[in-house]
Amino acid sequence: MSPADTPEARAARLGLAVPDYGNPPYGGRYGTVKAFHRSGRLVFLSGFTPEDRAGVILHPGRLGDDVTLAQGQAAARAAAVNALGGIRLALGSLDRVTSVVRALCFVVCTAEFEEVHLVAGAATDLLVEVFGTEAGVGGRAAIGVMQLARRNCFEIWLTVEADTET
Amino acid sequence: MSPADTPEARAARLGLAVPDYGNPPYGGRYGTVKAFHRSGRLVFLSGFTPEDRAGVILHPGRLGDDVTLAQGQAAARAAAVNALGGIRLALGSLDRVTSVVRALCFVVCTAEFEEVHLVAGAATDLLVEVFGTEAGVGGRAAIGVMQLARRNCFEIWLTVEADTET
Amino acid sequence: MSPADTPEARAARLGLAVPDYGNPPYGGRYGTVKAFHRSGRLVFLSGFTPEDRAGVILHPGRLGDDVTLAQGQAAARAAAVNALGGIRLALGSLDRVTSVVRALCFVVCTAEFEEVHLVAGAATDLLVEVFGTEAGVGGRAAIGVMQLARRNCFEIWLTVEADTET
Repeated sequence: MSPADTPEARAARLGLAVPDYGNPPYGGRYGTVKAFHRSGRLVFLSGFTPEDRAGVILHPGRLGDDVTLAQGQAAARAAAVNALGGIRLALGSLDRVTSVVRALCFVVCTAEFEEVHLVAGAATDLLVEVFGTEAGVGGRAAIGVMQLARRNCFEIWLTVEADTET
Repeated sequence: MSPADTPEARAARLGLAVPDYGNPPYGGRYGTVKAFHRSGRLVFLSGFTPEDRAGVILHPGRLGDDVTLAQGQAAARAAAVNALGGIRLALGSLDRVTSVVRALCFVVCTAEFEEVHLVAGAATDLLVEVFGTEAGVGGRAAIGVMQLARRNCFEIWLTVEADTET
Repeated sequence: MSPADTPEARAARLGLAVPDYGNPPYGGRYGTVKAFHRSGRLVFLSGFTPEDRAGVILHPGRLGDDVTLAQGQAAARAAAVNALGGIRLALGSLDRVTSVVRALCFVVCTAEFEEVHLVAGAATDLLVEVFGTEAGVGGRAAIGVMQLARRNCFEIWLTVEADTET
């Protein structure tokens, strides 16, 4: 892998604003939670939403109602970028991810909305852009739900694999 | 274990149409996803729905509305059979499963439908029929949700354990 | 750690009615399921709800409708206490937990209810009270859903880490 072709290099090239969950510490308005847990080579991440460190939420609301598909996809991508921040906090560098394991994706939507997979796909496609077509592809499920915290329209529940054991 | 009393033999005896996710490759209309990830002895499966390789969905809709309990149970069983295809792709044979770990089951339903566990039970009972009363019993949760991809009424998010490490 | 400052001692001091899932055996009215699966140091727990061994459910219903926030939090705490029963069944003692990994929390709510995290927080705060501010803090997601089994308003899908490998 050339230096220009690493996950960190790709994230930089894509201009992703990967948040630093070390400062201020992860959690904050959501109470006593941690960003990740490492066990063996597995990294179990906490839920990540399209909410920035100041608490501003990208496109809150409901797919099929007040959030368009394109907005939902932007929110899903933002949540995945936030999850990268969790990974970086866990491992120090995105380059230490050997594989995405799987992503359970929650989408707030109406009863009639049938394209939850297209919303979730925007999150998992971002992971492929960053980690590449081998390591970046994981399993996935997209679940349309009633609500999430503070009207976030998307949340990703992600597991990845690291290059070393704890 | 006698040759007639293996998971593969039981699946054959039950006449289960376990799909081959090697050909055509898993994913297709759902984009860049993989069917499973192995880590140590754990096999983390992607979400499986009651949708066949041609994209035909068994009993799409909503429990408590246009899908009956019996239809939902048939859909749940079909999703579990599809998950067997994911396991066979991961391990080469169902006989290499030492234990079902747990299954998170999503059921599209109305606000009044209170029997999501009876739907999920049809999926996990199929796993017991195939893997036996020791290895086939896992943990479970049944969650009634707003929607799934393309109006599927059921999805299973399964983890199993294999006989060898990666 | 002094004897008075162990998870078992804290659970006793809090007066928690941790259920014994060994007698009668876990499962019962929910069919063929198991309470937990151990793999390496990981303990994957089944879904736990605020339902006692007799099947009596604490505060069934829907947040934002017939269940108040305080009632939902009491239900979430009761579900977490039940999960402690699953952990004790798995490991013999709560003292063998080295870390909470993460908790996926499901809350039955209306479309307008925006505080699912405050409900889930009552469950994860209980884990912190018992396991302490280091081991007891895990990752978390709070998901507002349509329904759960038998009108339970909360369910926790928990993973913890033990002090020894299987």
